[in-house]
Amino acid sequence: MRTIGIQEIEDIAMGAALLGAGGGGDPYVGKLVAMDAVQACGPVTLLDPDEVADDALVIPIAMMGAPTVLGEKAIGGKEYQTLYDMVSQYFGKKIDAFMPIEAGGVNSMLPIAASARLGIPLVDVDGMGRAFPELQMVTFTIGGISATPMALTDEKGNSVIFNTITNKWTEELARAVTMSCGGSVSVSLYPMSGAQMKQYGVKGIVTRSQRLGEAIRTVKDCADQSPEERFLSFTGGYKLFKGKIADVLRETRGAFNFGKVVLEGIGEDKGGTAFVEFQNENLTATVNGEIRATTPDLICLVDVETFAPVTTDALKYGKRVLVVGLPCFPLWRTPAGLELVGPRYFGVDTDYIPLEERYKGGKG
Amino acid sequence: MRTIGIQEIEDIAMGAALLGAGGGGDPYVGKLVAMDAVQACGPVTLLDPDEVADDALVIPIAMMGAPTVLGEKAIGGKEYQTLYDMVSQYFGKKIDAFMPIEAGGVNSMLPIAASARLGIPLVDVDGMGRAFPELQMVTFTIGGISATPMALTDEKGNSVIFNTITNKWTEELARAVTMSCGGSVSVSLYPMSGAQMKQYGVKGIVTRSQRLGEAIRTVKDCADQSPEERFLSFTGGYKLFKGKIADVLRETRGAFNFGKVVLEGIGEDKGGTAFVEFQNENLTATVNGEIRATTPDLICLVDVETFAPVTTDALKYGKRVLVVGLPCFPLWRTPAGLELVGPRYFGVDTDYIPLEERYKGGKG
Repeated sequence: MRTIGIQEIEDIAMGAALLGAGGGGDPYVGKLVAMDAVQACGPVTLLDPDEVADDALVIPIAMMGAPTVLGEKAIGGKEYQTLYDMVSQYFGKKIDAFMPIEAGGVNSMLPIAASARLGIPLVDVDGMGRAFPELQMVTFTIGGISATPMALTDEKGNSVIFNTITNKWTEELARAVTMSCGGSVSVSLYPMSGAQMKQYGVKGIVTRSQRLGEAIRTVKDCADQSPEERFLSFTGGYKLFKGKIADVLRETRGAFNFGKVVLEGIGEDKGGTAFVEFQNENLTATVNGEIRATTPDLICLVDVETFAPVTTDALKYGKRVLVVGLPCFPLWRTPAGLELVGPRYFGVDTDYIPLEERYKGGKG
Repeated sequence: MRTIGIQEIEDIAMGAALLGAGGGGDPYVGKLVAMDAVQACGPVTLLDPDEVADDALVIPIAMMGAPTVLGEKAIGGKEYQTLYDMVSQYFGKKIDAFMPIEAGGVNSMLPIAASARLGIPLVDVDGMGRAFPELQMVTFTIGGISATPMALTDEKGNSVIFNTITNKWTEELARAVTMSCGGSVSVSLYPMSGAQMKQYGVKGIVTRSQRLGEAIRTVKDCADQSPEERFLSFTGGYKLFKGKIADVLRETRGAFNFGKVVLEGIGEDKGGTAFVEFQNENLTATVNGEIRATTPDLICLVDVETFAPVTTDALKYGKRVLVVGLPCFPLWRTPAGLELVGPRYFGVDTDYIPLEERYKGGKG
């Protein structure tokens, strides 16, 4: 058990945005929401998963929708209470803890804000260890845990409770409502017991985000390594490409951000080209015509100077970025995991090959 | 209090399909569902509205979606129980009676089936006195009654509860889910007290449907009048046009059936032309270039021989029909009523003029 205050939020937002793999929303927006809540209501208690009782009721809090829209719509304060009440009344019991469902600039932050506002502890766990675009894409689906009852509310005060036969159906129906509500909403889904959370969750993800954020913040403070070396060694990342953004193709469709970013090589990659395709999150990285990384491994773009993550929303012509691959949570590499989030699910006709195997000769 | 058995269902289905004003679905499909239920579980008790206690909990049962889809999807038996359980659990009390929300071939029948299957009385009332395409279009909206909590379930077993800030928002969100569920779903909305039902409902609509159905069934049994005279005098209808269907333009869009039927005059209207535009229900009737009736008055097409109503789904080239106008429930003619269901709401740029005023000189 420890406490999350302003500095921790700063670092968690940065690190979670990196783990967002291009998605998960703008960490600046997320950070402000969490900081506001902590300034108003005091710091948040972060529980280690093993500190949570097996029969506790734990619920994730998140936003659903196209990250591009998140920044344009106000995030109200009363949504957390509404979600709490909907789920608590459904089960007829109090909620013991909140948790994030994914790592990302916004969805790592909202549960902190909710915990601060409602005085409920947060658990150091999530269901992805990164961000993914669709709601059935969580380790809990592999564990057979239902996304429903799922509570959804918008900033206007509309609310919906879903009960579905599969988590893919939850995605279908909740996505339709999200679009009708203007493209982004607040949700609580995968209500679960402490035992389920401990069995299938990605443990320690909040702490990992914070450590990554600290490392980025202090990347230039090391005398023995260059900032890039330090960044790569700290993240355990594979350097895929270094380039300047030459083109960004982007489209908001069905409450998702689809697109592709094209890079012209700089530095040691001068003369080369690469592109990264995304659906909210980065899906594939292709360097000089060859696929070098695919989902579910994390493909992250970071600024070549500051190593701050660049989300798919923030891609801009001329920006100089390093494309980095990070190995995903091991459960995603199982057949059940790849069925949910492997390249073919996203329409990319290629087998998943782990980063470690693609870069057997060295880290790029 | 009286009982609804097989013969009553036959007549109610026919009369309600007439009041469906082109919409409300195929009375044959609806009839089979209701008859099956009554054959399996026995007749239904029909209560006069005034027999219902003021503090009773009364809920409408209906299908939502494009009527064209209803006939193609199976209507399961377990949806009524699911809806009952959802609403009953929400309020923490038993449900005292079901009611239809609109008159129409399907939506007059499903509440009968639900009442039979669950052994719960049906009330002789609805919220339209006809059919309309969108769910906020009920007298209860004028009375300030919320459509929510609204329960929705599909034949696969997905279910959703909505709570919205306005009834128009209920329509938006429930329509989005209906489309995602394949275009038609079972719903319960506008849960209300007996007092509310009595204050704003269209009373006696089941009985009126039954009487209209009887009249159509026996339209040729009268020695003193021609079948057409008898049909018009019994329904109180205005004869707008008699013609042969020359063209049908039809499109399913956003879970609605949109379209237009073009008629070439026959008999006394020989040489003339007319067209009727619809969104599930008929919206306008234009005869020889002049609008002769608009929503919210009922525009009904009936077979020239049998006087059986022809729904917008059943429009076919060459069919000979009589276009009849019936005055709507008086509440629809108030400013609040016309705002909800007047011609301008449907994008028809014309003032509403009551049938009686258009035909001051005589009934056409």
